[in-house]
Amino acid sequence: MQEQTKIYNKAKTFNNSQLRAVIRSGEYKGQTAGLSKNMLQTNLIILEKNYALDFMIFCQRNPKACPLVGVSDVGAPFLKTLGKNIDVRTDVPSYNIYKNGKLHRTVHEISNLWNENLVAFAIGCSFTFEHSLIKHGFTIDHINENKVVPMYNTNIKNLKSGPFGNTMVVSMRIFKKDHVNNVINICKKFHFAHGRPIHFGNPEEIGIFNIFEPDWGDDPRPLLEDEVNVFWACGVTPQNAILESSVPFCISHTPGYMLITDIDEGAEIPIIQ
Amino acid sequence: MQEQTKIYNKAKTFNNSQLRAVIRSGEYKGQTAGLSKNMLQTNLIILEKNYALDFMIFCQRNPKACPLVGVSDVGAPFLKTLGKNIDVRTDVPSYNIYKNGKLHRTVHEISNLWNENLVAFAIGCSFTFEHSLIKHGFTIDHINENKVVPMYNTNIKNLKSGPFGNTMVVSMRIFKKDHVNNVINICKKFHFAHGRPIHFGNPEEIGIFNIFEPDWGDDPRPLLEDEVNVFWACGVTPQNAILESSVPFCISHTPGYMLITDIDEGAEIPIIQ
Repeated sequence: MQEQTKIYNKAKTFNNSQLRAVIRSGEYKGQTAGLSKNMLQTNLIILEKNYALDFMIFCQRNPKACPLVGVSDVGAPFLKTLGKNIDVRTDVPSYNIYKNGKLHRTVHEISNLWNENLVAFAIGCSFTFEHSLIKHGFTIDHINENKVVPMYNTNIKNLKSGPFGNTMVVSMRIFKKDHVNNVINICKKFHFAHGRPIHFGNPEEIGIFNIFEPDWGDDPRPLLEDEVNVFWACGVTPQNAILESSVPFCISHTPGYMLITDIDEGAEIPIIQ
Repeated sequence: MQEQTKIYNKAKTFNNSQLRAVIRSGEYKGQTAGLSKNMLQTNLIILEKNYALDFMIFCQRNPKACPLVGVSDVGAPFLKTLGKNIDVRTDVPSYNIYKNGKLHRTVHEISNLWNENLVAFAIGCSFTFEHSLIKHGFTIDHINENKVVPMYNTNIKNLKSGPFGNTMVVSMRIFKKDHVNNVINICKKFHFAHGRPIHFGNPEEIGIFNIFEPDWGDDPRPLLEDEVNVFWACGVTPQNAILESSVPFCISHTPGYMLITDIDEGAEIPIIQ
């Protein structure tokens, strides 16, 4: 654990292209919260092209959870609009392989799985507003502790497209009740990174009955008396849609282990000009 | 002309669903700038499904000109996420039919042309920020005069996707030089309606050599000494891409004659919940 913390602290000193290089070489295989501050990080979904249109429409209809920030050409494992030399086969620290809607295994690179029928989708990520919150003096538990943010399935239905539907996944952070309005104001401008929270206060209202058992990520601590759980739409939502859809084959990032891009978090649009 | 002004002034008193009703019945066939204030209006592109993925990726890569706000299911002429009972076959005052990349004819409804292979795309429109500018006390020439905003082809290359590329189309409005910063600040928050201007000052810099001969819409007046031409990315850009692509069949709105939705212009996301 101490060794992991050391590696994470070293990774914190790297810029975005240095980080992609050590991830590509296999030197860094950890989670990416708190790394490469100021640069957009993204969720990743890779699908066969016959599912690509339905999936893209799914993202368009569920923009709070699935803000689409980049799409590859069919068969090309590159995301040219998000950065120089981004190769989706090697540049994510950990991938989930899904077969027939079930998690099959987790791997560190997917070069042997890529083929000319695949399309890669990059979806905005909450790490973007976290950096902004930290700059404004807020503390984020899971970053301080080098953990993965807790994520939960909810009872909020996604709008359907083709085989994709299911319910929204949310990420959770703890803030003082008095600070929630300020947190909302900071986050709402990040329209390609989930924007304002979708709920705060009562987890049961959105179908979360045990806050100490997240469906993805690490367990959170109990609240202090003046604190509240704040929930954001989460880019793991598409993986939830994949689970229900039973599509034959899908690759995603492992929740918390993101793709690091060359896009400034404050950019008006997520496109390298 | 006087009769048209009378009809336009009457249309100004209608709300969004009343307007869609008189457009659907054929009673109102005019342009829609200045109508149904506060409600999102959109550009429309209808394509055969084998071009839909490439086109959607084109929009994702060119979000200033092509902010995608709604997509139909394949074969369904409805945009359910943008409003109740929106039928793209009848709810736009004027349509352009393109065949093999050439403008074939202009019609007032397309019920006889719709088929189960078609997909409809709605793209954000500058009328959204115009309403906000008017609320802030600015005057918009073409609205005052019931004309269509002047639009120009430029030398700004779009990012390509499949057969879609070509150059950006811009719309132009005249403001006092001293007011440009204020105009930018008002417009920049409308990220699904072209956002901040892409240029002001010298039209030749973006490839416009005769400001008095727009490629679409009505001719503008000359500038006063303290005024400047301000240019926004325009939702007619996809029609320009269609012209170059030579896709066999495409239907669009006629520039200036938009689809009126039930989405509030100030909404965080363009989705009916």
